[in-house]
Amino acid sequence: MISITLISFLGPKGTFTHEVANLIGDELIPYCTIPAVMESVAGGEVDFGVVPIENSIEGPVGITLDSLAHKFDLKIYNEIIIPINQNLIVNPGCRMEDIRDVYSHAQAIAQCQKFISSHNIQPHYAISTANAAKSIIGDESKAAIGNVKAAEIYNLDILRENIQDTDNNETRFIVLSNNDHEPTGKDKTSIIFSIYEDRPGELYKILGIFQKNNINLTKIESRPSKKGLGRYLFFIDFYGHKDDGMIENIISEINDNTYFLKVLGSYPKF
Amino acid sequence: MISITLISFLGPKGTFTHEVANLIGDELIPYCTIPAVMESVAGGEVDFGVVPIENSIEGPVGITLDSLAHKFDLKIYNEIIIPINQNLIVNPGCRMEDIRDVYSHAQAIAQCQKFISSHNIQPHYAISTANAAKSIIGDESKAAIGNVKAAEIYNLDILRENIQDTDNNETRFIVLSNNDHEPTGKDKTSIIFSIYEDRPGELYKILGIFQKNNINLTKIESRPSKKGLGRYLFFIDFYGHKDDGMIENIISEINDNTYFLKVLGSYPKF
Repeated sequence: MISITLISFLGPKGTFTHEVANLIGDELIPYCTIPAVMESVAGGEVDFGVVPIENSIEGPVGITLDSLAHKFDLKIYNEIIIPINQNLIVNPGCRMEDIRDVYSHAQAIAQCQKFISSHNIQPHYAISTANAAKSIIGDESKAAIGNVKAAEIYNLDILRENIQDTDNNETRFIVLSNNDHEPTGKDKTSIIFSIYEDRPGELYKILGIFQKNNINLTKIESRPSKKGLGRYLFFIDFYGHKDDGMIENIISEINDNTYFLKVLGSYPKF
Repeated sequence: MISITLISFLGPKGTFTHEVANLIGDELIPYCTIPAVMESVAGGEVDFGVVPIENSIEGPVGITLDSLAHKFDLKIYNEIIIPINQNLIVNPGCRMEDIRDVYSHAQAIAQCQKFISSHNIQPHYAISTANAAKSIIGDESKAAIGNVKAAEIYNLDILRENIQDTDNNETRFIVLSNNDHEPTGKDKTSIIFSIYEDRPGELYKILGIFQKNNINLTKIESRPSKKGLGRYLFFIDFYGHKDDGMIENIISEINDNTYFLKVLGSYPKF
C-alpha cells in the first residue's frame, strides 16, 4: 500500500504558497483562507498545511500569527523561504508593445511600480496573482504579474523575468502539522508569550534568559494581545530544539516569568 | 486677522480618522492615502495631519510606521485614542425587519460577525465605512456599518449602537507636524531604531538602558527593515520628554548602541 501525503495550502492554484507546497508534496489541496488551511490540518483532513508567515518587505502575516496564537494548537513542522520573483505573464506570442493593461494582486503591483511606469502600462488590481493570470487569457493587450507556476497552469508565457523593484524580497512559509519534527541538530524553535501587565522590564528579563545562555534570536515580533492598546504577544524564534536539555530549561524559565506561553514547535532551520 | 488651522486626514469624509480630526481642527482636508496626508504636512500645505497608527485588535498600521521610518521626517505632535464603536446605519424610518443586506469595510464586517449572523442579514464589502453609508441611501432593504459621523454626513439614522463583537477595540491616531510639541510634564516619546546585525543581545542591551533608568515602555513594535528576513526596525514609546535631561541621556546612549536612530517626537500622553 502506498501512503500519499496530503497537503493543504493557501490557494488558489498558481500562488506563491502553491509553489512552496509543490516543493514538499504529493497531493495538494487549495483552501481559500489561512484559517481554513489550519482547520484542515487540525481536523485531520490533511497531513500538512502550508501558509505564509512573514515577508521581508511587508512584514508579518497577521492572520497567521493570530490564528496560531488564539485559534489552533498546531506545530510548526518545517519552514521554507523563497525569493519573491515577479514576472510579466502574457498570452503566447505577445510582445511588449502589445501590452496596455497589467493585472495583479495589489502587493505585486506595488512591488513592480518602476517597471510598470517605465513601460507606460495601466495597472489594475486582482484578488490574487493567480486570478490575474487567469483573467488575461485570450486578450493580447493584457498582461499579468505573478510567478512561474501561474504562467504554467494557464498556458501563458513569461515575457520578462524578475520585474520587481527591490531585492531582498523573500517570504517565509511554515509547514503545519499535528506532530513534532524530530531533532536534526540544526533546529529552530518558535514560541509565543505574553508578559505580566504593569511590571516594567519583563521583556528585558525574558531576553536576558536567552542572553545568559548565549542563544541567538532569529526573530522577534510583537502583536496586539487583543486585550487593549499597549498589551502585546511576543513571537520569538531562536536556535535550538525544544527537546535539548538547555532549551528545555530556557523554556521552563520563560514559563515561570510569563503570563502565557505557547511553544509552536521545533523544526529544521531552512 | 484670524489664523485658521488647516488639518489633513485620511479620508474620505465620515471615516474614524475624520471623527478624530474633527476633535482638534477648524478646517479639514481629506486625502486618500496615508503617505498623501504625510506629504501634505511635509510640504507645508497644512499645519497638521491625522493618521491611524495602531488598533488594539488588528495591530500596527504598517504603512504609517514604514512611511515615518523611511519616507518622511515628521514629528508626532499629539496622540488621540478613540474606541471603535460600530453602528448599524439605515435610511430614516427603516426598521430591523426591513434589512436584508449590510455593507461595510471588511474589517468592520469582521468586527460585527455575531450581530450580522444573529440577524440573518447578508454582508457585503465596501471600500470604507463611509462609502458603505453613501451606497445605501434610498434603499430601505440595505444597511451600512460605520460611525456616527458617517450617518450624520449622509442624513442617515443609527438603528443599533455598538454592534461590534469585542470590547477593547480602540484605535490610536497620531497628529503629525513639522514642529515639536513643548514639554507638558506628562509626555511620551516615540523613537525608531535598528540594531547592528549579527550582534546577539543588542535589543537586550537597549532595553537595559530603559530598565536601569526606571523608564516604562508603553509600546514595542518590530517591523521588517526591508533589508532581509530577520532584520528589524523597532518602534518604542516611553514616558518622558526628549528635552528632559535624563531622557536626553537615554537617547544619546541608545544612539551610541544602534545602527540607526530616529526620534519621532515627544507629545502629551493622551
